[in-house]
Amino acid sequence: MTLKNDLFLRAARGEQVERTPVWLMRQAGRILPEYREVRSRMGGFKELVENPEFACEVTIQPVDLLGVDAAIIFSDILVIPEAMGLPYQMVEKRGPWFDRTISSAADIDRLRVAEASDVQYTVDAVALTKKELNGRVPLIGFAGAPWTILSYMVEGSGSKTFSKAKKFLYTEPVLAHRLLEKITLSTINYLKGQIAAGADVVQVFDSWAGILSPEQYREFSLRYIARICDAISEVPVTVFAKGAFFAREDMGKLNCRTIGLDWNMDPAESRALIGPHMALQGNLDPCVLYADDATIVRHTEDMLRAFGPQRHIANLGHGIYPDIDPDKVRLFVNTVKAFRH
Amino acid sequence: MTLKNDLFLRAARGEQVERTPVWLMRQAGRILPEYREVRSRMGGFKELVENPEFACEVTIQPVDLLGVDAAIIFSDILVIPEAMGLPYQMVEKRGPWFDRTISSAADIDRLRVAEASDVQYTVDAVALTKKELNGRVPLIGFAGAPWTILSYMVEGSGSKTFSKAKKFLYTEPVLAHRLLEKITLSTINYLKGQIAAGADVVQVFDSWAGILSPEQYREFSLRYIARICDAISEVPVTVFAKGAFFAREDMGKLNCRTIGLDWNMDPAESRALIGPHMALQGNLDPCVLYADDATIVRHTEDMLRAFGPQRHIANLGHGIYPDIDPDKVRLFVNTVKAFRH
Repeated sequence: MTLKNDLFLRAARGEQVERTPVWLMRQAGRILPEYREVRSRMGGFKELVENPEFACEVTIQPVDLLGVDAAIIFSDILVIPEAMGLPYQMVEKRGPWFDRTISSAADIDRLRVAEASDVQYTVDAVALTKKELNGRVPLIGFAGAPWTILSYMVEGSGSKTFSKAKKFLYTEPVLAHRLLEKITLSTINYLKGQIAAGADVVQVFDSWAGILSPEQYREFSLRYIARICDAISEVPVTVFAKGAFFAREDMGKLNCRTIGLDWNMDPAESRALIGPHMALQGNLDPCVLYADDATIVRHTEDMLRAFGPQRHIANLGHGIYPDIDPDKVRLFVNTVKAFRH
Repeated sequence: MTLKNDLFLRAARGEQVERTPVWLMRQAGRILPEYREVRSRMGGFKELVENPEFACEVTIQPVDLLGVDAAIIFSDILVIPEAMGLPYQMVEKRGPWFDRTISSAADIDRLRVAEASDVQYTVDAVALTKKELNGRVPLIGFAGAPWTILSYMVEGSGSKTFSKAKKFLYTEPVLAHRLLEKITLSTINYLKGQIAAGADVVQVFDSWAGILSPEQYREFSLRYIARICDAISEVPVTVFAKGAFFAREDMGKLNCRTIGLDWNMDPAESRALIGPHMALQGNLDPCVLYADDATIVRHTEDMLRAFGPQRHIANLGHGIYPDIDPDKVRLFVNTVKAFRH
């Protein structure tokens, strides 16, 4: 099916665009009252993720209500540990929680390499959403980066320092690589399943990139992200590694189309480090959307000027905060759409 | 009084040293069983901070028990908000808590510019420790950077995103500057009081530097740190801005002697950005101290080679974690001391 709005894909492929495309990380399922309304009729977070009709509905809401140029499937990066045999719960206001964690070779041997069919609900949600979107905008599939997934599987929950997960890398490097291998194969299967179901783009989120040293990041994260990028040739891949400022030069060599930047990373410096061939995605400070309208417009336009008119996909530098006023988001989106370089 | 071990001061001033000096952030009052033993006889954390005899005892413990080349006074950066009129509590396992926070001009007008005598207990602790150290090693005084202090005063507690504090910068920049001005003047008074009492060096900790955009960091943090550096000419100043990789070039222009680096920051790249004239402090990943002995030695020696023999003060890239085995710390310290370039 031909896309009616393919700005995102053209920007990612380095083709000319008449204006910069825009979407927001976490736009599906966070800020909209319409999302909360649908959600209030349902159960907990995981039941929502596992319900393709619900996931489809909230994935499309931002396209209708905010006017973004791409939809991202409503799901969670932790579906992969669960598909591999390590179930989790999402505890209200506390975040993810694993009853069992990984600490030994036997723990890792018990895990299976997940197939896309082990996350059938998200694959089904992608297929349903693709159909319902009817070519209006591209649909983004996603997965967590192997290091970020490992960090939850070892730590068992969120953490300020993820010191247990980092300790595992320093004390059990051989086991860490064995686990990362299994996560990587599972992630490739899962992303290929989303692509087969209709995802036009996939994004790899390395949420905990920034807590590793540059040396550890190369050894335990980037090489597995590279494997994923090499395995996916069907659609453009975006890699977003929060906090990995030190890896930008290496990331320029990845076999992907787009590198996401957080709000700490200077656009011009990032462009110089990453190279001219990649699209860059980002990177407004999510907190700007708390400001008055004039401040939002000023910061958004400064960002657009800093990235320039081509090979840029406008976004925030991290996921949108849940208490942001949707009108402020619309102002951000409309400012990008109205801007002319 | 002449210092018997002035390696730290010589490294900070760029003078030749026969070996690299070493100490650890948070070495006073965190990991030693001897600290916990003294502490168990006392009350809560704040009562410890406000007790000069206790502060003196635990400040000196790491010199005796770990063999470090500098002592850092046992205190807390949040003594300054309290001295300005905003009291806090330290809640066990939860961290700092302010009953009142800052959100309006009236709130700021009610605050006073603190004098060193408003934190007399820490000034007394410095004087007592200086006497008890008897010139064995230099004594480090410290304070929080104005932005980090503001972030607690506005947020009211620790936070993953400090979005309330950042929102304040975007929505109330004039008030933010008024508050930062008062904090800066208080901090200068406080550091000068510590120096008058005998501190041989002072360090400014900008713990939440890394959550600001480069533009905000320049406007709301670095310019006040520069004011502090310009005001302190009596002793060498160290500035440690966690996560502010994007500000390293600007930090090279500060009127201070030493820049602290976190473990994400590459030594050679940091040297190139900051310039040849500064000492650099850091930056072993604190998690390395969870590893086996051979791994600790390897990473410590790699770090020493990366920084080179002069103008380097060995340290961790962040505060030591409370559950680290003191024998691992001794191994780190002794590896630095035994290493020859």
